[in-house]
Amino acid sequence: MADVVAFKKEEPNGLLLRETNGAVLRLTLNNPPANALSIALMQALAAELDAVAVAKDIKVVAIAASGKVFSAGHDLKEMTLHRADEDGGKAFFERAIRLAADIMLKITKLPQAVIAEIDGLATAAGCQLVASCDLAICTDTSTFCAPGVNIGLFCSTPMVALSRAAHRKQAMEMLLTGETIDASTAKDFGIVNRIVPQQYLRQVVDKYASVIASKSPQALKIGKEAFYRQADMTIADAYDYAVGVMVENMLASDAQEGIGAFLGKRLPEWKED
Amino acid sequence: MADVVAFKKEEPNGLLLRETNGAVLRLTLNNPPANALSIALMQALAAELDAVAVAKDIKVVAIAASGKVFSAGHDLKEMTLHRADEDGGKAFFERAIRLAADIMLKITKLPQAVIAEIDGLATAAGCQLVASCDLAICTDTSTFCAPGVNIGLFCSTPMVALSRAAHRKQAMEMLLTGETIDASTAKDFGIVNRIVPQQYLRQVVDKYASVIASKSPQALKIGKEAFYRQADMTIADAYDYAVGVMVENMLASDAQEGIGAFLGKRLPEWKED
Amino acid sequence: MADVVAFKKEEPNGLLLRETNGAVLRLTLNNPPANALSIALMQALAAELDAVAVAKDIKVVAIAASGKVFSAGHDLKEMTLHRADEDGGKAFFERAIRLAADIMLKITKLPQAVIAEIDGLATAAGCQLVASCDLAICTDTSTFCAPGVNIGLFCSTPMVALSRAAHRKQAMEMLLTGETIDASTAKDFGIVNRIVPQQYLRQVVDKYASVIASKSPQALKIGKEAFYRQADMTIADAYDYAVGVMVENMLASDAQEGIGAFLGKRLPEWKED
Repeated sequence: MADVVAFKKEEPNGLLLRETNGAVLRLTLNNPPANALSIALMQALAAELDAVAVAKDIKVVAIAASGKVFSAGHDLKEMTLHRADEDGGKAFFERAIRLAADIMLKITKLPQAVIAEIDGLATAAGCQLVASCDLAICTDTSTFCAPGVNIGLFCSTPMVALSRAAHRKQAMEMLLTGETIDASTAKDFGIVNRIVPQQYLRQVVDKYASVIASKSPQALKIGKEAFYRQADMTIADAYDYAVGVMVENMLASDAQEGIGAFLGKRLPEWKED
Repeated sequence: MADVVAFKKEEPNGLLLRETNGAVLRLTLNNPPANALSIALMQALAAELDAVAVAKDIKVVAIAASGKVFSAGHDLKEMTLHRADEDGGKAFFERAIRLAADIMLKITKLPQAVIAEIDGLATAAGCQLVASCDLAICTDTSTFCAPGVNIGLFCSTPMVALSRAAHRKQAMEMLLTGETIDASTAKDFGIVNRIVPQQYLRQVVDKYASVIASKSPQALKIGKEAFYRQADMTIADAYDYAVGVMVENMLASDAQEGIGAFLGKRLPEWKED
Repeated sequence: MADVVAFKKEEPNGLLLRETNGAVLRLTLNNPPANALSIALMQALAAELDAVAVAKDIKVVAIAASGKVFSAGHDLKEMTLHRADEDGGKAFFERAIRLAADIMLKITKLPQAVIAEIDGLATAAGCQLVASCDLAICTDTSTFCAPGVNIGLFCSTPMVALSRAAHRKQAMEMLLTGETIDASTAKDFGIVNRIVPQQYLRQVVDKYASVIASKSPQALKIGKEAFYRQADMTIADAYDYAVGVMVENMLASDAQEGIGAFLGKRLPEWKED
């Protein structure tokens, strides 16, 4: 599988480390000290997401980070330099903010499940990245905030993800006060799925990943796409759409194999999609 | 009231037991061992929901189940048999999955309140049924899952109900991992309203039902319909719509009676709608 | 600043007290014994919200109440008197219910953050008011309910706010049973942000207000408007919209000042917008 070999061998961009372990690709933000989402890092991340979208033997992507900050969001120094541009930075800001939004949408459109693996502070677009992943697992010392309001730049794109992950008043509290919440509060809010002691973080993420990787990639792809699409529909439209998806899924080979295995009390063997 | 007599006397289909107690109709799934939602059981349930929709003295419907499994969802054996059909089962799958979706929509459209009464495992379309009821009350040993992904058939129609009951990441965790959650987690997720010890389950459901049955059926009908309709609107449209609903409700006889009783410190007497 | 002088000096309507403390305007419902939302009180509240919308040095509005009831919702006596109108009250009901809905929408459209400060019972449209504020802070003895169903008048307009603040089943439980929930349950449901002992209520609200008031009013205005607008969009549309908002925000003077201050490790000085 050329894709996987590529994943294992190459590491063209030190800003984003990649490592494959079976069907799990771990992408590690590596832009110290704050893993700022510079254009270069975002381009590397977008490129990896595009590549893995067609990498058939990767079933789960974990997004982790080096150091004590998961990600502090956009690279404010880089942005500030572009204030000297002829247009006062407008084109650059548009590019940077659009690129971040596109990454979030790529994550929801990826056929594979995406798990945020957080150990440390996730702020602004870094918090948006956590909120945009399918699942999020963090250490008990991780913290989260949407502090744009502190610097005159409301976290308006992060709010898209935050307000879809959490209740409105709780998202609003983060956005209006800019204050930092702890892992337990983030779990209460719905932003993370599970909190673990630091020494077990990777192990627990890998356990989730291996559980998900044991499923049919056909089913995961069909189901994940349907999840985000139906979420934007009225309930009646969502059912019309989901019924069609489920019929299609029933007719796919892995459902035949999986249901046969279940009824026959044996383990299924998924088709390499 | 012909409808109620019918409810009390007839029980044409052993797959679905029915029992009326005052204004409460209890429908009990009775398709051992797993209360699979076979076509026959779903047809019986759909027919009961259609009948009760016009049964004026039923004010609350409880959906319970016999045995240790609330419902394991679609009848996979029945579905698998239809793989031998000329179309590979397509028409049958469409029929079964659409019928389940229609039942969920019927529940939200029923003028009466619907309470899921769960003691045991609710999986796949069984979990969808729980998520689709207006309220859900379960025993402390009940469990819930969306395990389609384990058999290559992502729970795409259950996700419509689950993702509208719970936060996205929590719904996604159930759907991607297929793992079983306990009653307490289901309550945290928003899938159930209350957890009770097994010996009190029916008593607590009946208490809820009698509280709701003491209300104006006019108001319940108007309000429940409005709830699900406005949920699919923008906030401005929802207010435009709800203001009209509320004015209509104010002009209905029961609001006049109810407000008069409240101001006069007496008990209201609702019109038999 | 003419607006602020007006706020400090005038108090034309004893039904609604107002007090400014720096950048914080506190509006206190003062219609004993239940702070019923009579036409007069709602008109006063709507007028204050319209006035503060253009009052540039008010950055936060707190909505509090005198006495032991935050608000019991619409004034049922006033409404009942209008049953004697030629149209049976229809025009009056429309006016009263529309006015309440307009107040809720005004709150979400206000450039300033709005905090509900609750000590006591918030019912029906009073509960809707809590649910409609950006944030809500209550005492540990506060209670909440949507009891319209008890008087034949389903809380259909309150449900618009409640069902957008809380999960569906939890909102439905309040609406169908009309039962009162305590502060802790309201926090679990997502209806309030924080619970405090009574003697600290005002102090905590003021602390939140001062935190928010320390932020850029430009950013707060841009961000709050974007929050409620994007909440009604699909995720793709929400990102298209929010990217534009964020670029505009980056080009505004306060973002330049705020980011410059952050990078320069100094305190920002916000432009008086």
